[in-house]
Amino acid sequence: MSKNIMEYETVDLDDHDSSVVIIDQTKLPGTTEIIRLHTAQEIWDAIYLLKVRGAPAIGVAAAFGIYVLSKEILKNINFEQEQEKAFAEFYEKFSEQKEYLNSSRPTAVNLSWALNRMETICLKAGKEEKKSVEEVVEALHREAIAIKEEDIWVCKTIGEFGLSLVKPGDGILTHCNAGQLATSKYGTATAPIYLGQERGYNFHVFADETRPLLQGARLTAYELHSSGVDVTLICDNMSAMVMKNGWVNAVFVGCDRVAANGDAANKIGTSVVATVAKRYGVPFYVCAPTSTIDYDTPTGAEIKIEQRPAGEVTEMWYKERMAPEGVKVFNPAFDVTDNDLITAIVTEYGIARAPFKESLEEIRKQKQEAKAEKE
Amino acid sequence: MSKNIMEYETVDLDDHDSSVVIIDQTKLPGTTEIIRLHTAQEIWDAIYLLKVRGAPAIGVAAAFGIYVLSKEILKNINFEQEQEKAFAEFYEKFSEQKEYLNSSRPTAVNLSWALNRMETICLKAGKEEKKSVEEVVEALHREAIAIKEEDIWVCKTIGEFGLSLVKPGDGILTHCNAGQLATSKYGTATAPIYLGQERGYNFHVFADETRPLLQGARLTAYELHSSGVDVTLICDNMSAMVMKNGWVNAVFVGCDRVAANGDAANKIGTSVVATVAKRYGVPFYVCAPTSTIDYDTPTGAEIKIEQRPAGEVTEMWYKERMAPEGVKVFNPAFDVTDNDLITAIVTEYGIARAPFKESLEEIRKQKQEAKAEKE
Repeated sequence: MSKNIMEYETVDLDDHDSSVVIIDQTKLPGTTEIIRLHTAQEIWDAIYLLKVRGAPAIGVAAAFGIYVLSKEILKNINFEQEQEKAFAEFYEKFSEQKEYLNSSRPTAVNLSWALNRMETICLKAGKEEKKSVEEVVEALHREAIAIKEEDIWVCKTIGEFGLSLVKPGDGILTHCNAGQLATSKYGTATAPIYLGQERGYNFHVFADETRPLLQGARLTAYELHSSGVDVTLICDNMSAMVMKNGWVNAVFVGCDRVAANGDAANKIGTSVVATVAKRYGVPFYVCAPTSTIDYDTPTGAEIKIEQRPAGEVTEMWYKERMAPEGVKVFNPAFDVTDNDLITAIVTEYGIARAPFKESLEEIRKQKQEAKAEKE
Repeated sequence: MSKNIMEYETVDLDDHDSSVVIIDQTKLPGTTEIIRLHTAQEIWDAIYLLKVRGAPAIGVAAAFGIYVLSKEILKNINFEQEQEKAFAEFYEKFSEQKEYLNSSRPTAVNLSWALNRMETICLKAGKEEKKSVEEVVEALHREAIAIKEEDIWVCKTIGEFGLSLVKPGDGILTHCNAGQLATSKYGTATAPIYLGQERGYNFHVFADETRPLLQGARLTAYELHSSGVDVTLICDNMSAMVMKNGWVNAVFVGCDRVAANGDAANKIGTSVVATVAKRYGVPFYVCAPTSTIDYDTPTGAEIKIEQRPAGEVTEMWYKERMAPEGVKVFNPAFDVTDNDLITAIVTEYGIARAPFKESLEEIRKQKQEAKAEKE
C-alpha cells in the first residue's frame, strides 16, 4: 500500500497517452493511487477537489493540462484555411480551456501564473512568430516541461543550500507540508531532507501534525515515511519537548509569502515553532522560492490572514463533534513569523540572513543577474 | 442539551437515595447526563471508565462512594453481638470495598489518598474511640463531606488569589482542562474565571483544544460555554496569534506536579504556551493546590513523563487513519515548564513568585501554621 514516492513524481506528463499523471492526494495516507487526467473536466476536478495541491504542483498540473487540451484542440482544426485563421481558431478554443481551468481554484496564484505563461508562449509562437499551429503546440509542450523543470531546479537548489546548514545524523523538525507532494519533486522545506537521504545523511525528522487540517500527519509523515526517511510524528504542542530533549538541530519550514523585511507568513503554528526554537537555541530556517518573496509588502503586519470554517476545528475528521455546539472558534489558516525569530531564509539564489531587508534585496539582484545572463 | 454546569456539581452525594451523583463525562460534550451510582460495581466502573475524572473529583467520588457502601454494610451487621465484634465485622467488609474501589485507577494518587483518609476516620471512631458502628458511619459521612468542602475551599481560594491578578474585560488563555469538571466546583485554572463570571468581570477566554485527547475542546470549552462564559476555542498552535493580536492578558493553567524549584509538570503543550506568553509579555500563572507541590523533587528534570499510545495521535477520534500505518509517534502526556517561564504559582495559601524555592517554602510554612491553628 505504502510506496516510495521518490520513485515517481507528484505531477507528470504522459505525452503518449496525452494525460496528466498525478498522485490522488485525497486518498492519502491510506491509499497511494496514481490517476490519469485526460479531459478538461478531469483536470478541473483534480485541482478543485485538491487531488493535486501545493502552489508549485498546481502550476505544473495546469501547464501540463492546458498542453494536453491543446493537443485535443489541434485534432479538430481545419487546416484547409490560412495559417492565421487556423491559429485564431486554435487560440479561441485555447482561451476557453484556459479560462475554464483557471476557475478551478481562483485564489491559487500559481494556477493563473502558469496558465498565463502558457498563453504568452501560445501568442508569441502563433501570432508574433507566425508559426504553424502544430509548432505552437510544440512550443506549449516545451514551456510546460520548462515550468516543471524550473520547479525542480528551484527545489533542488533550495535543498542544496539547506543541506549546507546541517550535518549527517542531525534532528530536523518541520511543520505542515512543504514537501514533495506540494511541488514537482523534493519540496521546499523537505528538499534538504530528501537530498540528505540520497546521500546517506540519516536525518531524524520530526513532523508536526499541523492542526486543524493535519497536513503534517497526512502528507509529510506519509511522504517521508514512504521514502524511508526516519520520521516521527508529533502533535504541534510537543515541539518544546523534543527541542528541550536536544533532539532537534534545525527547523525547516516552507512559506506562503515573505515580506520585504523577512517576516514570513506560513501555515498557522509556524510562529509558535519559531518562538520555541529560539528558546532552545535551534536555528529556524524558512525555505522560500524567490517567487514567494513579496517586495511590495513592507512587513508581515500588512499580510492579511485567511480565516477558515470553525468546523475544521470542531468536527472535521471526527466521528462525532469534539467541541460543544455553538462554541466560538478562531481558525486562522496562517500566521506571520517575525523576522527576529528567523535564522535564515533559504532561496534558490542563496541564503538570506538578518538584516533581511538588505539580504533579500541582494537575492533579488542575484536573480536578475542570472536572468539577464540567460537571456 | 447544553446546561449550565454551574447549576449542579461535578460530584455530589444524595444521602436520601444513598447514591453518588455525577455528570457522565464520557458523554460530553454531546450530552449532559447526570447518573447515580449505588453499588460498588457502579462506582468502580464510573472511575475506571473515566465517567468521573480529574484528581480532586476522583477523590471526592471515592469518599462519597465508600460512605454509600458503608451504609449498605451497616444494614447487614448483626447488632446482637458486642460492639467490638460488630465493628470488626463492619471493618472487614469496609476494607474489602475500599480495596475494590482503590483498584479502579491504581495510578490516581487522589483515589487512594481519599480512601485512606476515610479508613483512618473509620479506625479512629470505631477502634480508638470505641464508637458504635452507626456512629462510625456518621463519622464517615462527615469526613466525605469535609473532603469535598476542602476541595471547594482550595479551588475557591485559588480563584480569589487568581482573580486579584486580572481585571474586568481581560482576555484569558487556558490549556487542557483544570476546570470544574476535574474538581468538586470551580476547578483550579478556571476558578478565577468562574469567580469573575459571578461578579460580572466579562472575561474573554481562549481555550486551547489540547491535542491529542482534546480535553480543552471537549471539556473546557464545554463547561465554560455552558456556564455562559465568553469562550473561543483555538487549536494549540494558534496561541501565538491570539497573543500577538493583544487578545490575551493572562494565561492560567493547572498542574500535575510542581517541583521544589517551581518547575511545573502539566499537560503536554503547557511549556509551549509559557514560551509564547513570555515572548508576548503575557503573564503565565500556574494554579496549584499545595497538594501538588512536591518538595522532595528538586527540579522538573527529575519528573518522569508518561508516554502514551501512538493511536491517540494517529487514529483516535477519527473516521479513518490520519497518519500512515507504521509511522513512529512520540506522544508524551505531560511536559515540564521551566520556572523562568512562570510568572507566579497560585496556591490556596497565597501567590508564589520567583525565586520559587524560597516562595514555595513560605507557602509550606503558611499551610503548616494554618493547620496548627485549626488543631
